[in-house]
Amino acid sequence: MKYIAIIGFGVVGGGITEVIEQNKAAVKRLVGDEIYVKYILDLREFPDSPYGDRVVHDVNIIADDPEISVVCETMGGVNPAFDFSMLMLKNKKSVVTSNKELVAKRGVELLSAARQAGVQYLFEASVGGGIPEIRGMRTSLAGDTVSGIDGIMNGTTNYILTRMKKDGASFDEALSEAQRLGYAEKDPTADVDGFDAQRKIMILTAVATDMMADEGDVYRETMRNITPLDMDAAARFGGTVKLLGSARIGEDSASVFVCPFFVPSDCPLSFVDDVYNGIRVMSPVTADVMFYGRGAGRMPTAGAVVADVVSVLSGIAEKERSAKWEYAPDGYITPFEENSFSYYLRIRTESPEECAEAVRLAFGGAEILQGSPEGFAELITDEINEKDARSLFPSLEGLESHIRIMK
Amino acid sequence: MKYIAIIGFGVVGGGITEVIEQNKAAVKRLVGDEIYVKYILDLREFPDSPYGDRVVHDVNIIADDPEISVVCETMGGVNPAFDFSMLMLKNKKSVVTSNKELVAKRGVELLSAARQAGVQYLFEASVGGGIPEIRGMRTSLAGDTVSGIDGIMNGTTNYILTRMKKDGASFDEALSEAQRLGYAEKDPTADVDGFDAQRKIMILTAVATDMMADEGDVYRETMRNITPLDMDAAARFGGTVKLLGSARIGEDSASVFVCPFFVPSDCPLSFVDDVYNGIRVMSPVTADVMFYGRGAGRMPTAGAVVADVVSVLSGIAEKERSAKWEYAPDGYITPFEENSFSYYLRIRTESPEECAEAVRLAFGGAEILQGSPEGFAELITDEINEKDARSLFPSLEGLESHIRIMK
Repeated sequence: MKYIAIIGFGVVGGGITEVIEQNKAAVKRLVGDEIYVKYILDLREFPDSPYGDRVVHDVNIIADDPEISVVCETMGGVNPAFDFSMLMLKNKKSVVTSNKELVAKRGVELLSAARQAGVQYLFEASVGGGIPEIRGMRTSLAGDTVSGIDGIMNGTTNYILTRMKKDGASFDEALSEAQRLGYAEKDPTADVDGFDAQRKIMILTAVATDMMADEGDVYRETMRNITPLDMDAAARFGGTVKLLGSARIGEDSASVFVCPFFVPSDCPLSFVDDVYNGIRVMSPVTADVMFYGRGAGRMPTAGAVVADVVSVLSGIAEKERSAKWEYAPDGYITPFEENSFSYYLRIRTESPEECAEAVRLAFGGAEILQGSPEGFAELITDEINEKDARSLFPSLEGLESHIRIMK
Repeated sequence: MKYIAIIGFGVVGGGITEVIEQNKAAVKRLVGDEIYVKYILDLREFPDSPYGDRVVHDVNIIADDPEISVVCETMGGVNPAFDFSMLMLKNKKSVVTSNKELVAKRGVELLSAARQAGVQYLFEASVGGGIPEIRGMRTSLAGDTVSGIDGIMNGTTNYILTRMKKDGASFDEALSEAQRLGYAEKDPTADVDGFDAQRKIMILTAVATDMMADEGDVYRETMRNITPLDMDAAARFGGTVKLLGSARIGEDSASVFVCPFFVPSDCPLSFVDDVYNGIRVMSPVTADVMFYGRGAGRMPTAGAVVADVVSVLSGIAEKERSAKWEYAPDGYITPFEENSFSYYLRIRTESPEECAEAVRLAFGGAEILQGSPEGFAELITDEINEKDARSLFPSLEGLESHIRIMK
């Protein structure tokens, strides 16, 4: 019997017990032994749960029990999850987590502590729920350098954008619907302002480069400003609007950013709809690989946690390239302003032709997007340095929207 | 230094040396040592290759060299690849392969020989080129039962169907273009008649169930009969035509088949176009996961072979659930006729209304597909047992096309 503990018995934590129960035979075949959830740490009691008798309120009971080899941390948040995780690692217990905030903010130290203790710190469930993109990047693209990542990694915002695209809904209408269905929180900031996607792309970039960016170096733009007119323009352009978390990775540098993009329909990400996630990994040898699936939800996320538990207990994790992250040194993460993009521009104007000419002159080239609504000029500019573009925007009278084109 | 050998220095075999060269530093970090290609077995000489001096013509030189720990078999075909692979395994060398025919036909024995010798037989590159769906199924969905697989696993036929969809080309026109571009062989039988996809879905089914089906039990249907009228009907239905390799997996049985399907546009497979592959794995916990990427090509396929080499040399493969395949016992693979499908039917008729009524009566229900060309009735039938459907087809005078709807 292999004994594990769960810290935080919420949605995902509860799912873990279910997955282990449901897949008992398969897990036993993989691990060579049964897994038994010996403790559940939570502030609450669960008198009606079949696991009620395993609930403890003192983290040291788990830390001090030599039978416990793996601890699942599904509390969320940095504190006290960080302290609890450190305590477990120092006591030579592997920790697996679904806690993206913690991995993004303190993953460097947690991985270092795990290495020092000779145990594992795994976090497949922290990005993309049940989608195995982290293990995929770490083991299956083995030896191949990752040159870029583009991900739809937030199901809430993707649901909102899908409703806007398919039903012509406004952002507010689509958000309300998402809230009604339980896909969006009452305070949707973490999702719609890109904080969630920011953490996830920081984690994936670290998986690819071993460098953890500082949050302040990762450009983040809200998707609250996307309108039905933007969605309509994206359709005429031949694509759709998606909120992407992206990384462009060079030999000694990376640019990491989260913002809405026009995604052309020849990119598979343009078809990732509703609450689904899609993570596209580019590399010179394997070319494009995309991982697609449910990026959140009780069972998929719990399933990913259990897969990590199995990977520790079967000894696979120990053999995998152990992640040695460090905080990215100054200059490694290049400023967002140094990127170049084509832009979609929508400008309210009485004289679209003149307006288009002015944009062409300013941006060094631009094509008119056909089918504009009355009273607007719409253009797709040539590629231009982000910094230059920003300095030009204030001069464009009537500019209502500017959205980058994914490349 | 870790020494490996390559058997078969063709497109993929040559790619392996390139990938190892190109990713030297990363491979060393993963394996803890450099990889050196010591021998290349081929009938030919390669005087102009930098690897020319490593070419040997006697397989025993490799088999007898105790320094060789991994052999990459990239010959293709069953003979002599099977004998060579068995020889290597018996001499305690792990074998990694891109040879789908061999894995499908003799994988059971090769895996058994590998187990007996305490070495590995890995075949990620045999399905989906650089797409890591086999490792994904084996390790990342750990503990989760696979209930179904649907894959676009043949880039050639997908290219043909994409041209038919996007350009309105006929099958023959699209095939000619694919041949001109080098995507299709002069004799396209293996691709367009589904043999290639059949082998691949047999392999993936075995990965999921440990049971290798007999080729004769895996239904296979050509896609030569798909016409522009079918593509047009699929678009009106709200989807597209794809050649799928599919498995429906129960507790003690599986149904495995390859045929063209109407794939509705709410399924991500409907957007997998051109030479790309998409493999969708369904399971109760993780729900739908799709792996997407280039399913063939020198570098992606070689990259997958090298990832397997790395997995052996780093010790990961040893810890992974070792595949223990057996030949599926009688009755495990259920006859295709026992499945039920909805059907698209196109019937040439002067009186579409009467025809529709007749189909409704015969099939127990059917909806008219709107927008049919003059002189045709088009229907989407209710779900019906395959055997019953087949017995009804001869009675439908003027029946020009029947295509199953993916579910």
